[in-house]
Amino acid sequence: MIKITLPDGSIKEFEKGTTPMEVAKSISEGLARNVISAKFNDSTVETTTPLNVDGNLVLFTWNDDEGKKAFWHSSSHVMAQAIQELYPGVKLTIGPAIERGFYYDIDFGEQKISENDFKQIEDKILEISRGKHNFQLREVSKQDALDFYKKENNDFKVELIENLRDGEITFCDHSTFTDLCRGGHIPNTGIIKAVKLTSVAGAYWRGDEKNPQLTRVYGISFPKQKDLKEYLELLEEAKRRDHRKLGKELELFTFSQKVGQGLPLWLPKGAALRERLENFLKKAQKQAGYEMVVSPHIALKELYVTSGHFAKYGEDSFQPIKTPNEGEEFMLKPMNCPHHCEMFNASSWSYRDLPKRFAEFGTVYRYEQSGELHGLTRVRGFTQDDAHIFCTPDQLDQEFKNVIDLTLYVFQSLGFEDFITQVSLRDPDNKDKYIGSDDVWEKAENAIISAAEEKGLNYKVETGEAAFYGPKLDFMVKDALGRQWQLGTIQVDYNLPQRFELSYKGSDNESHTPVMIHRAPFGSMERFVAILLEHTGGNFPLWLMPEQAIILSLSEKYEKYSQKVLSLLEKYEIRALVDHRNETIGKKIREAEMNKYPFMLIVGEQEAQDGTVSVRRHSEGDLGTMQVEEFANLINTEINSTLKPFKTEV
Amino acid sequence: MIKITLPDGSIKEFEKGTTPMEVAKSISEGLARNVISAKFNDSTVETTTPLNVDGNLVLFTWNDDEGKKAFWHSSSHVMAQAIQELYPGVKLTIGPAIERGFYYDIDFGEQKISENDFKQIEDKILEISRGKHNFQLREVSKQDALDFYKKENNDFKVELIENLRDGEITFCDHSTFTDLCRGGHIPNTGIIKAVKLTSVAGAYWRGDEKNPQLTRVYGISFPKQKDLKEYLELLEEAKRRDHRKLGKELELFTFSQKVGQGLPLWLPKGAALRERLENFLKKAQKQAGYEMVVSPHIALKELYVTSGHFAKYGEDSFQPIKTPNEGEEFMLKPMNCPHHCEMFNASSWSYRDLPKRFAEFGTVYRYEQSGELHGLTRVRGFTQDDAHIFCTPDQLDQEFKNVIDLTLYVFQSLGFEDFITQVSLRDPDNKDKYIGSDDVWEKAENAIISAAEEKGLNYKVETGEAAFYGPKLDFMVKDALGRQWQLGTIQVDYNLPQRFELSYKGSDNESHTPVMIHRAPFGSMERFVAILLEHTGGNFPLWLMPEQAIILSLSEKYEKYSQKVLSLLEKYEIRALVDHRNETIGKKIREAEMNKYPFMLIVGEQEAQDGTVSVRRHSEGDLGTMQVEEFANLINTEINSTLKPFKTEV
Repeated sequence: MIKITLPDGSIKEFEKGTTPMEVAKSISEGLARNVISAKFNDSTVETTTPLNVDGNLVLFTWNDDEGKKAFWHSSSHVMAQAIQELYPGVKLTIGPAIERGFYYDIDFGEQKISENDFKQIEDKILEISRGKHNFQLREVSKQDALDFYKKENNDFKVELIENLRDGEITFCDHSTFTDLCRGGHIPNTGIIKAVKLTSVAGAYWRGDEKNPQLTRVYGISFPKQKDLKEYLELLEEAKRRDHRKLGKELELFTFSQKVGQGLPLWLPKGAALRERLENFLKKAQKQAGYEMVVSPHIALKELYVTSGHFAKYGEDSFQPIKTPNEGEEFMLKPMNCPHHCEMFNASSWSYRDLPKRFAEFGTVYRYEQSGELHGLTRVRGFTQDDAHIFCTPDQLDQEFKNVIDLTLYVFQSLGFEDFITQVSLRDPDNKDKYIGSDDVWEKAENAIISAAEEKGLNYKVETGEAAFYGPKLDFMVKDALGRQWQLGTIQVDYNLPQRFELSYKGSDNESHTPVMIHRAPFGSMERFVAILLEHTGGNFPLWLMPEQAIILSLSEKYEKYSQKVLSLLEKYEIRALVDHRNETIGKKIREAEMNKYPFMLIVGEQEAQDGTVSVRRHSEGDLGTMQVEEFANLINTEINSTLKPFKTEV
Repeated sequence: MIKITLPDGSIKEFEKGTTPMEVAKSISEGLARNVISAKFNDSTVETTTPLNVDGNLVLFTWNDDEGKKAFWHSSSHVMAQAIQELYPGVKLTIGPAIERGFYYDIDFGEQKISENDFKQIEDKILEISRGKHNFQLREVSKQDALDFYKKENNDFKVELIENLRDGEITFCDHSTFTDLCRGGHIPNTGIIKAVKLTSVAGAYWRGDEKNPQLTRVYGISFPKQKDLKEYLELLEEAKRRDHRKLGKELELFTFSQKVGQGLPLWLPKGAALRERLENFLKKAQKQAGYEMVVSPHIALKELYVTSGHFAKYGEDSFQPIKTPNEGEEFMLKPMNCPHHCEMFNASSWSYRDLPKRFAEFGTVYRYEQSGELHGLTRVRGFTQDDAHIFCTPDQLDQEFKNVIDLTLYVFQSLGFEDFITQVSLRDPDNKDKYIGSDDVWEKAENAIISAAEEKGLNYKVETGEAAFYGPKLDFMVKDALGRQWQLGTIQVDYNLPQRFELSYKGSDNESHTPVMIHRAPFGSMERFVAILLEHTGGNFPLWLMPEQAIILSLSEKYEKYSQKVLSLLEKYEIRALVDHRNETIGKKIREAEMNKYPFMLIVGEQEAQDGTVSVRRHSEGDLGTMQVEEFANLINTEINSTLKPFKTEV
């Protein structure tokens, strides 16, 4: 008999050789129907693997990430079989599960495949799936494995096997198909009920462009047809909300081949939007006792040698900038912190002067391979809403809480209600990896956890995930489509203050090293605007909208009155414009809806006479006729209800 | 007989061989007493040079720049003689007049000289001067000249002479002293009545660090003792107002050796000052129809190849930034215009959309040799208050006037009342040097001149000083010490629109190339703040002051009331702080005066009871007791009287 411990802590006895699926059945038939993969003693196992020792067993269903992974990995086997049957002679290489779905890299030889062929392959996959073939893992000797693939003339698999040792080589069979595979499958193909190939792309064998080019076929599969339908709808909505598309439509930003990839140019409406975001944060930061500073975008290489950034990132980043005839070498600034340390060092400080909070919308440059660039979310130059707080160890607790307050204020004001946080602590078994004494680490980690507790954050703790220079708290928001984005971060740093020899005079009249907090609630202006675009689909919070209202005149006769309304709105600091084209009011309204103007103000004979406007709300419709002042009040009341002033104890 | 034309156009006949001094005497004895140098047919001549042909003669006095130049150049001869007498064996090299005074580069051999020796040299100079020795120029043959200096063992002069030809070598004698010299002297040493050696520094022969090091002795001289006294006072005041000194005292900015020379770090008070200036201009620009944009600080080298900047500046500037494994090369942006052109190119435009006015506080980087760096006036990275206007040729006239309005508004709001302007036109005899047709040049030059006329500018026209791409208008302000600074510039550009193939659709439905205007009223934020500091000595206009008032409590008892006053002032958007130190009120007032706080608000028992403050004005004294609201009104009325809103027709 063996003892199996389940995640709820309960321990059950089973006969040696019992499989995870049998354990599931012993709990309930319902569970057994849903179990699709398993982990035993922290290793992935098949649901059919006989368990022969005591241990911890976790059973996964479709609702678990691990379950989805097994589902998609297994689906890639079925896709490979389908393609092999439809395109005889193709050579398989590797086919893993990914975050959403799976892919398989295949050498099609002389054959070609395009999106037009997807339907046929999907049908074949479903046909195989309906056969309810079991997945079965078996160990093979290295020689047998090599023989198998040499016979198939598959050099790729041969190369993979040659790097493995006897005893660690397994094949997985299902139906008539066999693949080299480490395991982690669903019980049988029958539970794959829906599948969609999503794209086809080129890929190099082992990711190296010197190797032969393969064809990567992407797909996704589901246990229910309904899940696929929802997924496709979400995909469509994500496409509609793609910030690159919206950014173009709303004339927010552009890229230029001559300026270079990954270097956004902010057009007037985008620059104005960005400035509103910056002013919003500046105001709150002023309230919270921050001071703005300005630093250059380059510095001598020595600065980053001092900070340690050069040793860590130098080779993979933009290379040093040489000068014509003096030996100096400059570098593009990858971070603002070294500059702020030098500013701190420009004066001498007493403990009474601390905390000092230096904030800067600092544009930094980091090299990314061109293939990894993506709109505003992955760029080569971006502006951090950066700040560095220099404080005494005793002040860390309160400062950390204040930063959480500020971050929550930012999220709330911008409509991100769904977010989680992660507290990253050091690995207590590997203390040597970290800088700073036990005492200060304990203090800082406790400060973060108690702050997270006190602020009621939904947080998980990850031990060993801290940076070597200090623990941190990261914020991940969920957007309207349920996608998760890493946004702001708050990091404690004991390293830079030492490297830059920062100091202050304590109440004991001795020199002490301050603690530093790095923080950026937005993360970067580029990334934040991208996420905000995808989250809101361009329907920004009212206070942020490029134009809050559009005045639609019924005919050219009311041009003058339209202008009068516009001036009045400007007085109330409402951003508006006039559509003075000679078009029907129906067409003007339709286009205004499409262009996401939050309010449409229709003016004609009656309105001009009464000094009123007929108000329509975007996607809501008619709000009735009112005085311009009344409308201004309406809009400003709404803004004040979402954009509350920031309050904190400093 | 020869005909001499004088600057007023009058023509007089003289005998051949008449000297400029004799011409002066023929006009008036008074003039003759003041004439110190002359120019004949555009060449510098001595006042004793016999004139043998017809020509134009200009006579200079101390009030002319040319007169001062001759005065100082002659003084350097006298200084050289004095030093040679006091330090036998020194070797002279060159000794020119400079903008303010003169210097002489001398090889002192084993001898040393320091500021302690200045008095003795000055005395010797004046002693020689009192001898009223005439300066006399004489032509010498190359061989004689070489023999003279070889006898003196002076390799420097020998090297100079070897590069000259027979017939172009002149010596100048006065007293017992002879020097190799091209001429341009005052009549005799007697008019040098006051002299001051100002500094001593190292200098390399011919400016090349591979050559022997010489000692450069700087001096300045005057025709009256009073002039020297005024000059020294001005110098003292300039030292007090040195923006590097004030910038440190007022905690505005700092430099860091690790970040690098010429790269200012703006500390909180400086960053806030800068932001106020930016916000001030942003507001006016918005009124004037500008739109803000944001562009990166780097771009592919190709962008600057297209713009022509690389060909022109590439070798002498920061070198290209290489990337780890893609062939791309980036460069630090030396100008914002190429980026703005690419933004213009991101959309298609009709003539109805123009003018487009893209503005950006764009930080640019230009390499300067470390020896040429100076505080904030000569830096390696600076932020231009840049804008580019894209308009039709027909709109150029009005746009140019609007830019002048904006520039004048900036100067007026910041207290620069004394300025001149220069209109730079193309050389009509060298039209090939310039890009653009006769037609557009004529139009643009006329537009600038008529705009300058209409706006009543004090302007001078410089033919041949235009850039190759278009004519321009430069603004030079005089500061409180009478020093002239180049500030804003407005330039017309036909070149970049062609290079970037910019276009708009005209009313004729055809594609046309727009005209571009570059403009920057401040010039750069760094330079402008430096000039403003030196102009105001740190007593900025009230609206710009880092802190507008300081609250001085009579004792700690009034701490609470002081805080109440502070909150009230904040409500009125007045920047203030409290001096809550336990010091006497006398000391607090003295220090507040020194720190240039415009208003001191003294609060004690009576004020706390009545809800008032006792107001003192910086450098003016007591203004009496008033309600806090009354004081707020006072301050805001003053601000509104200097900082009027910008009005223009757009």
